[in-house]
Amino acid sequence: MEPYELTATAASKLIAEKKLSCEELARSTLARIEEREPVVKAWSYVDRDMVIRKARDLDKTPPKTPLHGLTFGVKDVIETVDMPTQQNSPLYAGHQSGQDAACVAVVRHGGALIVGKTDTVEFASGGRMAATHNPHNGAHTPGGSSSGSGAAVGDLQVQLAFGTQTGGSHIRPAAFNGIYGIKPTHGAVSREGAKNYSHTLDTIGWYGRSVDDLELVAREFRLFGIDAPETVALKGLRVGLCRTPYWDKADGYAKAALLEAGRRLEKAGAIVVEFDLPASFAGLDDAQHAVIYGEGRGAFLPVYLGPQRHLLAQHFVDIVENTKNDPQITPKMLVDAYDLAARCRMEFDAMIPGTVDVVMAPASPGEPPEGLSSSGNPVFNAMWTLLHVPCLAIPVGKSPRNLPLGIQLVGPRFADARLIHIAHACAPAIHENNALGVIQA
Amino acid sequence: MEPYELTATAASKLIAEKKLSCEELARSTLARIEEREPVVKAWSYVDRDMVIRKARDLDKTPPKTPLHGLTFGVKDVIETVDMPTQQNSPLYAGHQSGQDAACVAVVRHGGALIVGKTDTVEFASGGRMAATHNPHNGAHTPGGSSSGSGAAVGDLQVQLAFGTQTGGSHIRPAAFNGIYGIKPTHGAVSREGAKNYSHTLDTIGWYGRSVDDLELVAREFRLFGIDAPETVALKGLRVGLCRTPYWDKADGYAKAALLEAGRRLEKAGAIVVEFDLPASFAGLDDAQHAVIYGEGRGAFLPVYLGPQRHLLAQHFVDIVENTKNDPQITPKMLVDAYDLAARCRMEFDAMIPGTVDVVMAPASPGEPPEGLSSSGNPVFNAMWTLLHVPCLAIPVGKSPRNLPLGIQLVGPRFADARLIHIAHACAPAIHENNALGVIQA
Repeated sequence: MEPYELTATAASKLIAEKKLSCEELARSTLARIEEREPVVKAWSYVDRDMVIRKARDLDKTPPKTPLHGLTFGVKDVIETVDMPTQQNSPLYAGHQSGQDAACVAVVRHGGALIVGKTDTVEFASGGRMAATHNPHNGAHTPGGSSSGSGAAVGDLQVQLAFGTQTGGSHIRPAAFNGIYGIKPTHGAVSREGAKNYSHTLDTIGWYGRSVDDLELVAREFRLFGIDAPETVALKGLRVGLCRTPYWDKADGYAKAALLEAGRRLEKAGAIVVEFDLPASFAGLDDAQHAVIYGEGRGAFLPVYLGPQRHLLAQHFVDIVENTKNDPQITPKMLVDAYDLAARCRMEFDAMIPGTVDVVMAPASPGEPPEGLSSSGNPVFNAMWTLLHVPCLAIPVGKSPRNLPLGIQLVGPRFADARLIHIAHACAPAIHENNALGVIQA
Repeated sequence: MEPYELTATAASKLIAEKKLSCEELARSTLARIEEREPVVKAWSYVDRDMVIRKARDLDKTPPKTPLHGLTFGVKDVIETVDMPTQQNSPLYAGHQSGQDAACVAVVRHGGALIVGKTDTVEFASGGRMAATHNPHNGAHTPGGSSSGSGAAVGDLQVQLAFGTQTGGSHIRPAAFNGIYGIKPTHGAVSREGAKNYSHTLDTIGWYGRSVDDLELVAREFRLFGIDAPETVALKGLRVGLCRTPYWDKADGYAKAALLEAGRRLEKAGAIVVEFDLPASFAGLDDAQHAVIYGEGRGAFLPVYLGPQRHLLAQHFVDIVENTKNDPQITPKMLVDAYDLAARCRMEFDAMIPGTVDVVMAPASPGEPPEGLSSSGNPVFNAMWTLLHVPCLAIPVGKSPRNLPLGIQLVGPRFADARLIHIAHACAPAIHENNALGVIQA
């Protein structure tokens, strides 16, 4: 096994035992990237020499945390002190922010090796798509806007990566690339230094190749309760199988993946029950739409007013001008959206652990779309983003076209640690010992 | 009258009519700053030559907006491309972010002359206080954390300035410095490039010397409805005089200022009625405390984990470690705080315009405290910050010690434009034609 193939957790153990050096891992990673980049195109920036130099520096320093030497990709809407942050926008070509975003600083202080910047949809929003291909089937999208981060982890080019989610930009690519991903409770991780799009929705998340990998990073962010030891037994765990109000938007594969994951959990001892959301939740997708465009007006106003507006994709001009939205965003729509979200948050949290221990829902509408012109529909993510609840994506299997499918576990706000513990119990059953099964629609 | 004494609105008119050049205004402004800085200490950075150079450039360009050439101070937690952003922290000494914050970019594109960076409480939070003195009585604080911005506008050193409010950092200094200030609806103005402390609370605001001045800036931010012409008649306007649940925290001057403002409005034709908030609103101050410290944990984690933790004031170490808070912040406290705020937001908005047209409340607990060790109590601001509602400070008069006192008008979320129109009607009565009366406690 080559070092690049190791999960973060496995590599961390070897590095701690001095059986693997940071430089060896870095060189193996860079070789993998060099081999695969022409096909996958996950990266917008990698400085090979800097990566090796930093890996050597890490080898001279005793590990402070289990992240020491682990390879990390950073979505290119998140600032890095030593690399450009280009937002996939001509406005930011070569832009050096001169500082690390909060999330990057946390893992860098923990010893993570920042390998490079991953390609993104323009400003993690719309406009210019990432150049990235799905590593499992290059004719398809890896999803977005965290396209490069999802593909890089899914293609074993890097062990961990940051993404962001404002609609469905983090969890959907996790499913599309056959990897694990967590979008923590909104606000649990500082977004300072990441592109602002919608303050109510923007959330930093990360990808890994196992639940353990996600937990390694969660510990550095000191998520509430993450240090308390807890082992969740799958036997008797009440899993709410949630089709969501948008089930008719799921293709046969997404439906099969969710139902198959339910059957696997049941077989392994969990109690899987149907979990219906109250009727009012059906308004959350429209509410998220109002919030993302209503708040986006202010986010893109500065560039719109500036001398370089011609470098901004029409998508952003439309958001600021608020004339092409159908319907146009009004203050009443925004307030109604905030208030619906607030009521649904309270209702959702009240059902856990009263009714079920965890909710399981589709992570995407199904197979990643063909071509790179669409990164897929965020409808199975947007409602959860607006609810601020933690979501954790787990791979289920692949379609006959070798396209990954996943589900997400969802918990109440700030129960991130509990959600990770539950995922530890569920993932081996759902993911079938990492051997992906082929899902038939 | 010297140019520095002009309100933004008056100067804008003269500049448009070519009766005043940007350079004349800039030179007058710089002379005023030079004279007063040794006493007031409002500034952390002013580059005299750059200001004159930029003013000359503006004189060569036709005005794009009414902000052309107007003098603007920027609180030093807000990034500027051409000046350091130092956060009043040794960690950021000389720090150049290399970019403009969103709010700075908007007014700069409008032609505003950014004069310099104003002193702030460390990270707009706690720890190191600003060196700024109250310009009306140097033995007292100008308030904070927007200390320098409030004092600079109050001392006629600059016409407009940005502040921020997470607790009471913007509206309280407006009252303490005898000026106008608006904290718009949370999220209406992008906070990108301003220090992140608490994403639920952080709000960009601005100061001016009249309601017209505030409106000039509001137009550039395209606040909802700001372009619709509306004239509010004071006669028959229903003003809800709101003591808030914290009335016992107000000193005799704050109480007298609110009641006096009510009498003045009534005399001018308004219908002033007592406005009591529902009992649940009494929990908002504690809720704001939970949110600010709960979210601050993540905001200050990166520096806490880094090699320069020793340069961080103990205040921030305590926030991250969450051990000195009494009580310690828990996930349940945070969720309860969010949900209480959400319910109160709905209740508050439902009362306007049903019960009253606008709410009038204390802007501070009274006179600015003596000395610079405390910037004052945010208790009359924190609840409104958490409610996300727009607040507009209006000066009322001064105490016998020459210390300014103010009130704030408060409206429902996203009714910023309406609030400004109402303030146009109310301010002449409250502020008594700009001649400050002496308030007796």
